[in-house]
Amino acid sequence: MALSKSPYRGTRDLFPQDKRKQQYIFDVMRTTAESFCFEPYDGPLLEEVDLYRAKSGTELINEQIYAFIDRGEREVAIRPEMTPTLARMVAQIHREVAKPLRWYAIPNLMRYEKPQRGRLREHWQLNCDIFGAPENLGEVEILQVAVALLKNFGANQNHFEILLNDRRVVDAIFKMAMQLTDEQCYKLYKVVDRSKKVTAEALEKMCDEILNPQQKQIFLQYIQLKNFGELTNLLSKLNLNDHAKSFLQFVELCQQSELKDFITYDPTIVRGLDYYTGVVFEIFDKHPDNRRALCGGGAYANLLQIFNEEPLAGIGFGLGDVTLLDFLQSHGLIDNYAHQNSNLLITYQDEAQWKIANQLAQDLRANELQIEFHLGEAKLKKAFQIAEKKQHQFIALIGESEAANGEVQIKNQKTRDAKNFKLNDIKNIIDFLKAN
Amino acid sequence: MALSKSPYRGTRDLFPQDKRKQQYIFDVMRTTAESFCFEPYDGPLLEEVDLYRAKSGTELINEQIYAFIDRGEREVAIRPEMTPTLARMVAQIHREVAKPLRWYAIPNLMRYEKPQRGRLREHWQLNCDIFGAPENLGEVEILQVAVALLKNFGANQNHFEILLNDRRVVDAIFKMAMQLTDEQCYKLYKVVDRSKKVTAEALEKMCDEILNPQQKQIFLQYIQLKNFGELTNLLSKLNLNDHAKSFLQFVELCQQSELKDFITYDPTIVRGLDYYTGVVFEIFDKHPDNRRALCGGGAYANLLQIFNEEPLAGIGFGLGDVTLLDFLQSHGLIDNYAHQNSNLLITYQDEAQWKIANQLAQDLRANELQIEFHLGEAKLKKAFQIAEKKQHQFIALIGESEAANGEVQIKNQKTRDAKNFKLNDIKNIIDFLKAN
Repeated sequence: MALSKSPYRGTRDLFPQDKRKQQYIFDVMRTTAESFCFEPYDGPLLEEVDLYRAKSGTELINEQIYAFIDRGEREVAIRPEMTPTLARMVAQIHREVAKPLRWYAIPNLMRYEKPQRGRLREHWQLNCDIFGAPENLGEVEILQVAVALLKNFGANQNHFEILLNDRRVVDAIFKMAMQLTDEQCYKLYKVVDRSKKVTAEALEKMCDEILNPQQKQIFLQYIQLKNFGELTNLLSKLNLNDHAKSFLQFVELCQQSELKDFITYDPTIVRGLDYYTGVVFEIFDKHPDNRRALCGGGAYANLLQIFNEEPLAGIGFGLGDVTLLDFLQSHGLIDNYAHQNSNLLITYQDEAQWKIANQLAQDLRANELQIEFHLGEAKLKKAFQIAEKKQHQFIALIGESEAANGEVQIKNQKTRDAKNFKLNDIKNIIDFLKAN
Repeated sequence: MALSKSPYRGTRDLFPQDKRKQQYIFDVMRTTAESFCFEPYDGPLLEEVDLYRAKSGTELINEQIYAFIDRGEREVAIRPEMTPTLARMVAQIHREVAKPLRWYAIPNLMRYEKPQRGRLREHWQLNCDIFGAPENLGEVEILQVAVALLKNFGANQNHFEILLNDRRVVDAIFKMAMQLTDEQCYKLYKVVDRSKKVTAEALEKMCDEILNPQQKQIFLQYIQLKNFGELTNLLSKLNLNDHAKSFLQFVELCQQSELKDFITYDPTIVRGLDYYTGVVFEIFDKHPDNRRALCGGGAYANLLQIFNEEPLAGIGFGLGDVTLLDFLQSHGLIDNYAHQNSNLLITYQDEAQWKIANQLAQDLRANELQIEFHLGEAKLKKAFQIAEKKQHQFIALIGESEAANGEVQIKNQKTRDAKNFKLNDIKNIIDFLKAN
């Protein structure tokens, strides 16, 4: 029986057109991260499962990771996220290096998901993190990186917004004002996390299971907050201003920068329970077909604890290529990349000209040009057909007479200009190819 | 108990210095492949094991792949090589696209190896392949890509050589001249594959187990061939010239190009048994400490057969990043990449200048500069210490007086030049930064 030609469920075959798009996306990610002097890092595809057990949520461990026993009886998993690897690496070197540390990576990750729009089993994810920055300054910079990235793709405030919250503020409301126990708090976080996806009635019902009427009243005020002003008012009413000082100072810094055009307060943003200890955020696509987080992140204080290392404040985000591509395509912000780049197609008419034609190709490649050398003899008609099919603007023709004169004819298919050059006149050939 | 900080055995933590090296390597791979108009592709990290069973060797299946059962009861493996994925993808589209197809990828791959110098469990590998090229022309081009790649790293014929052979020639000698059965032939291929690693006596002993004296005599002549001339003589003596026609024509084409400086005939090169049907080759490091194949490849005629597709001639090679890095380091062909790139470190003295300093950083980043914005106040002494530690050549200083004048002072640490600029005079700031 013939084998299946399909890729494994939830993964992608990236044909050249798709891969060119992805390369463009990776290039912009890299350029943006490096414009902020973030340094690249990378880690193994496999980690021991214990690393994920220590910090990742139970849902991830029980339902999503690709875990197995290797031939040496180690329990390993394909990385489902990069942060545990990052923490492991930073734990090795943080005592010796200058702070802050700014690191980025674009790893491939796998989770056993039910494949759907914007969610596959394998994706690539830009991870940017800052360790050891003074309070709030790292938070501002990490948001600036995310915004610069989307701006570098041509996006603006019509396309996306940043939804902000702070775990310390939420904790203050839940624990100080509402007097919840840790267990109630944990359950209520889950409710918050689901609040946007359920009806008002369903939300009330979930509340009733956890909260008494007084608690519920505060919670409903909280969950309906629309902006920073309303938050400040509620905090004043609840006498919690002190607990929001750091967050509000952070918001004030954002207001002093280009971030002011993008940020909104959103009480429903709390992110996963396991890492975050301060500011949390999601970047949301504003496209009506695509209302979804493009990117999520936040501040974490205790990531190195599992390695018995002292706390080191960190802030970071992850942004996946699948949702990003949906975002860019929904807003018409990415080319279709249908054709390969090429500066010139070189053809020869007879075997006798192979050597000089091939040499010309090599000479031009050595000058950083992208040259397609046609494999096989091609008379004029065929040569033009090939150039047309592959959308080459320039075509080089070498036949008997050109070879006799040590020349090549180069034609610009767009302008219909044609010109003969000596084969060794590389400089003028390049000028001709670049002139148009 | 604290978790281990070490990476999984046989894999690498790539800290920024290592990752910068790897990025440089990937950039040269990509630029080189694209200079030949190879198009990028990529595929899934996981494939169903059946795909590897169909074509990869039994050693790979039984001892080397990372295979497991997924949560949906599929038997899957982390890709140990890219060729099966490539074949699966080409099988989907080869009927619709113009030939030849030139594709490249740089995937991460895993094999359960015993880690040692030049061999890890996880590596990245440049794969270049051409499908549907006329006889020998694809073969020449694929070698030209490999040579251009190593030349683009600064290597030349003192550093590496290309060892060539042809499976059709070997088959002719084994089957026509020596009259071996398929089974003997299979065994003898294994002997050839090991011949360089064993003593002359051990080799003779292995021969005696398979061959009669007459066969052995021919084999020993074959295995001692040193160059193309000796090969031609032996083939004439054995009346096998017809079977070597294509190979010798290929060698003749190589001689007409820059490949002539690199190629040598080597009877011990046969590569794995499973794919190859024509020319086979390895690129060998000439460094005495590092006598090892950097790259291997060859021609395969029947790769699409397992998908019930018609034969499509292909030729390709794989070149891994671990052996390549050893090669480049042994020959002093790669920088140490100890420090990040940066055009400017921006510092401010007091909180009051944060806003304008941060704005300057953003304005310069929007002009494609790499800017490190110091997080936190820094008086002069501290600012210079930071610049020195991180090896910034340029440092921007913004204090009270600069802020009052809407200015920034920029210092070139190398030349000791210092100059004041208006904060919005981005053009002149860039000229100053780029002048040295």
